[in-house]
Amino acid sequence: MLPTVINVGWTYRRAGVDLNAHHEMHNYAIDSIRRLARELNIEVSEGAFTRFLSLNNMQLTLHVDGVGTKSMIALATHRFKVLGWDCVIGNTNDVACDNAKPLAVVDYVALRDNDVDAVRGVIDGIIDASSKVNAMLLGGETAIMPDLVNGIDVACAVLGIRVGPTGNVKTSDVVIGVSSNGLHMNGYSLARRVLLGKYRLNDQVCGEELSNLLLKPTADYSGLILDLYDSRLIKRAVHVTGGAFTKLRRVLGPGQGLSLEMPEPPCIFQEIQSVGGVDWGEMYRVFNMGVGLVLITDPNNVDDVVKAVRRWNLNPWVLGMVTEDYQGVLSLNLWNGLRVKI
Amino acid sequence: MLPTVINVGWTYRRAGVDLNAHHEMHNYAIDSIRRLARELNIEVSEGAFTRFLSLNNMQLTLHVDGVGTKSMIALATHRFKVLGWDCVIGNTNDVACDNAKPLAVVDYVALRDNDVDAVRGVIDGIIDASSKVNAMLLGGETAIMPDLVNGIDVACAVLGIRVGPTGNVKTSDVVIGVSSNGLHMNGYSLARRVLLGKYRLNDQVCGEELSNLLLKPTADYSGLILDLYDSRLIKRAVHVTGGAFTKLRRVLGPGQGLSLEMPEPPCIFQEIQSVGGVDWGEMYRVFNMGVGLVLITDPNNVDDVVKAVRRWNLNPWVLGMVTEDYQGVLSLNLWNGLRVKI
Repeated sequence: MLPTVINVGWTYRRAGVDLNAHHEMHNYAIDSIRRLARELNIEVSEGAFTRFLSLNNMQLTLHVDGVGTKSMIALATHRFKVLGWDCVIGNTNDVACDNAKPLAVVDYVALRDNDVDAVRGVIDGIIDASSKVNAMLLGGETAIMPDLVNGIDVACAVLGIRVGPTGNVKTSDVVIGVSSNGLHMNGYSLARRVLLGKYRLNDQVCGEELSNLLLKPTADYSGLILDLYDSRLIKRAVHVTGGAFTKLRRVLGPGQGLSLEMPEPPCIFQEIQSVGGVDWGEMYRVFNMGVGLVLITDPNNVDDVVKAVRRWNLNPWVLGMVTEDYQGVLSLNLWNGLRVKI
Repeated sequence: MLPTVINVGWTYRRAGVDLNAHHEMHNYAIDSIRRLARELNIEVSEGAFTRFLSLNNMQLTLHVDGVGTKSMIALATHRFKVLGWDCVIGNTNDVACDNAKPLAVVDYVALRDNDVDAVRGVIDGIIDASSKVNAMLLGGETAIMPDLVNGIDVACAVLGIRVGPTGNVKTSDVVIGVSSNGLHMNGYSLARRVLLGKYRLNDQVCGEELSNLLLKPTADYSGLILDLYDSRLIKRAVHVTGGAFTKLRRVLGPGQGLSLEMPEPPCIFQEIQSVGGVDWGEMYRVFNMGVGLVLITDPNNVDDVVKAVRRWNLNPWVLGMVTEDYQGVLSLNLWNGLRVKI
């Protein structure tokens, strides 16, 4: 348990994560990548979430992501498998959004102790997830660093191959949300600060043990997304992860905005908001709020997309449409009557 | 500075890194990978250091490695560029040893603070190294995790493509060592414990400021290695990293051993050994001891290999030959008259 007294008005920044600084780091990386591409004279094609390298008429992508401080909940409860699962699925969901099929995975585990059981658990989860998405685990690195890591950190890199194009989003295209399975792997620095200031991990919260709520595995969307692209039913897919709904901007054209009716979020998100006094706009910048994937489709395909989502045992919501009004500002009408712009 | 009093007999294990536990983790991963390959019915070909996936008649590999606690020296002196450089080169050296050319890189940086300068420095080093080895940086992830990381952790994954075969090692093949540039990125948990118990980072050690000695960039061997494979001058290359000279076993056939005359290691390694009272065998299991790369060649090619190494401004040593005597035991005759088996 953290010894923090909870005040009203928690933000991601107060919890230690400054999204502006993160944005600055990201921009520096993007500029550096472009400079390198010019210098090496390598043609790199940009997806919305990944970059592709041409090789013998194939478009290959590499993508990397880590499970964040969800690992601290896993360590406290000695349940490591979900970290391996999330590490793979968090990446393959992203790669699929650019219409690329995952081919191979490598993992990186940094840990404080010589904890063989923890590493076995992580590997078990990686194998389950790799098997599910049909990607081959090609190797990994385990670094034992007692002075550097307070627990366990898990990241994965995924190799993907582009299987087809994505579409251009037009005004009046329809935006469909797909249910998540808990927090997935984002916002844990804030969620932990807020929730563990009030609760213990074995307390009942929202009718369930808190540790269970916080360790739900990330939903696997890659099969659904690739199917929908393959049958030309969607133009774009957005995995709601770091930056949450602000990521939607990456698929919008110039001058386009979104006006969305957001469904009531699952109890755990409402609990974080109310216990932490977190601004609702901040909530939608940090968490998936029950909507882990967003699909953008031509109005004629809405019914087919909704049916496809249900066939994958996920819940769809028609959230709204692409507008010309907001010039990159996303306007979210919440189920409780509030309206936030992010 | 660490407040530790240095006793005689430091080992990697006492410094927090248990190579037996690490070995157990590694074996579990290998078994899991083999099980997954059978389950997915994917043919994976095993290099000595990486695994290859077949895709349209190409053999692709993914490899991951991190810079370890060298980052703690970088953080203390605010010199981050070397971390990005090492992160790429540590991987590309390994990939080249399996005769694969690096194509693309992604990085993963986990850090305690919203330290934009640190991340910029790391990215600068990644770009320099990627440019040097002609690999494209395709993306990365920066995770700010104040509760999980005491400083900065940097790992990279590299995509490589196999460009040719490696050879089978025979009895009487010759073993050639190639000079390293300092500790590269291995053994820092032990080196820091030992050296920082006696010295400060700005003390003069071995005629140089200690921080400079500990932050020398990893030597880039990939161009040399790929040239030597291409001209059929070597059968195998071994990058001396985690596990140090024990890695040589991976390229030996059944029943083969090595008997090598090791050159005098640079002063910094002798300093670590004497200050820490570290067993000499342990030194050769943990550190590169001045020999960052080992090449194995037919006796007829020794002169050409030695010349090629010199052309790359690196120092070669003819260390000895492959024997039938040792059955996997490596016998090292040290310059000081001692003999160690590892």
